[in-house]
Amino acid sequence: MSEKTKERLLKQLDFILELDKEKQVGRQTYLSDGSRKENDAEHAWHMALMTMILWEYGPEDMDRFRVMSMVLIHDIVEIYAGDTYAYDEAAKETQKEREQAAAEKLFSMLPEDQEEEIRSLFDEFEKYETAESKFAHLLDNFQPVLLNNASNGKSWREHGVKISQILKRNKRTKEGSMVLWERQLELLEENIRKGNIIDDR
Amino acid sequence: MSEKTKERLLKQLDFILELDKEKQVGRQTYLSDGSRKENDAEHAWHMALMTMILWEYGPEDMDRFRVMSMVLIHDIVEIYAGDTYAYDEAAKETQKEREQAAAEKLFSMLPEDQEEEIRSLFDEFEKYETAESKFAHLLDNFQPVLLNNASNGKSWREHGVKISQILKRNKRTKEGSMVLWERQLELLEENIRKGNIIDDR
Repeated sequence: MSEKTKERLLKQLDFILELDKEKQVGRQTYLSDGSRKENDAEHAWHMALMTMILWEYGPEDMDRFRVMSMVLIHDIVEIYAGDTYAYDEAAKETQKEREQAAAEKLFSMLPEDQEEEIRSLFDEFEKYETAESKFAHLLDNFQPVLLNNASNGKSWREHGVKISQILKRNKRTKEGSMVLWERQLELLEENIRKGNIIDDR
Repeated sequence: MSEKTKERLLKQLDFILELDKEKQVGRQTYLSDGSRKENDAEHAWHMALMTMILWEYGPEDMDRFRVMSMVLIHDIVEIYAGDTYAYDEAAKETQKEREQAAAEKLFSMLPEDQEEEIRSLFDEFEKYETAESKFAHLLDNFQPVLLNNASNGKSWREHGVKISQILKRNKRTKEGSMVLWERQLELLEENIRKGNIIDDR
């Protein structure tokens, strides 16, 4: 290969190797059998598969490939910024700033054209305006609900999570899919009945 | 939602929950820092990201979305069939049979149209004929080489892996990408020099 190709490739491979660290960024959600908590890479993989199986319920004219790419990278800045638990209000105050700095550091490892491409996908997710980003946000909220429901609410109970907190976090979820939001609500109601989620309505 | 939609959705969600088990299928490759071995879900996520970054080196007219979908599901039958280590010759003899039975069991959880779609992707990978499957196979071999190189050959050394075994496994890798195969060979040579791979040529 030419010197120019080699230089480009080595940058890309350094970035790919750096991404390996996402496998060590822990989340608060347990696997379905409750044996351990999952990590960011596993979460993103699961969301990408949900995109493959559930895209028919998303907004019209949604580009599946773009959703899939978006969910695969949506958490990679947490390699430097750490995972911010959905119901940790103090950490959430500094989240944007920490993640923007991390994005700068991480994406700049790439050749310029790809740096722009990945940043644009990441920003699109954060801005939450397009059909693709709405579906990606839905998956980001729905995936842990499926797992928490399967583990009999282990993570919800550990953190004493209230339904008001979950509904606040999900106030725009229905924009991603009415059908999937309806199912999510059913699962939340079931877990309120089981005492896994605190009913403060 | 209608009864029919609900019935379809519940099948899809059962399948998605079953996939969670892939996070517990262990591989022999260590993470880049050597701290622990990775699992199938992490491996597939990493390959999907490699598709995003490295597709320019793949065969002409390759469909990136198809590659990405293929790599995301290529190992899911291991939920029932277990991971077969690349250099375990005894296990490899029964691999095809075990994986076909697992595919039957797993894919039949889905609505019929999606069962066919996923089976077709899985079979395409196994058949190793299309541009997309060639690139997917390259990634399946290149990703662990990147990690093994980063961990100073930890897994290669543990298993006493010989270069002849690696080259045999990779005899068609160049069909996925000459550029990436060239880089993979450089890394293999480096690890022979370091004594991480046994030189039996």
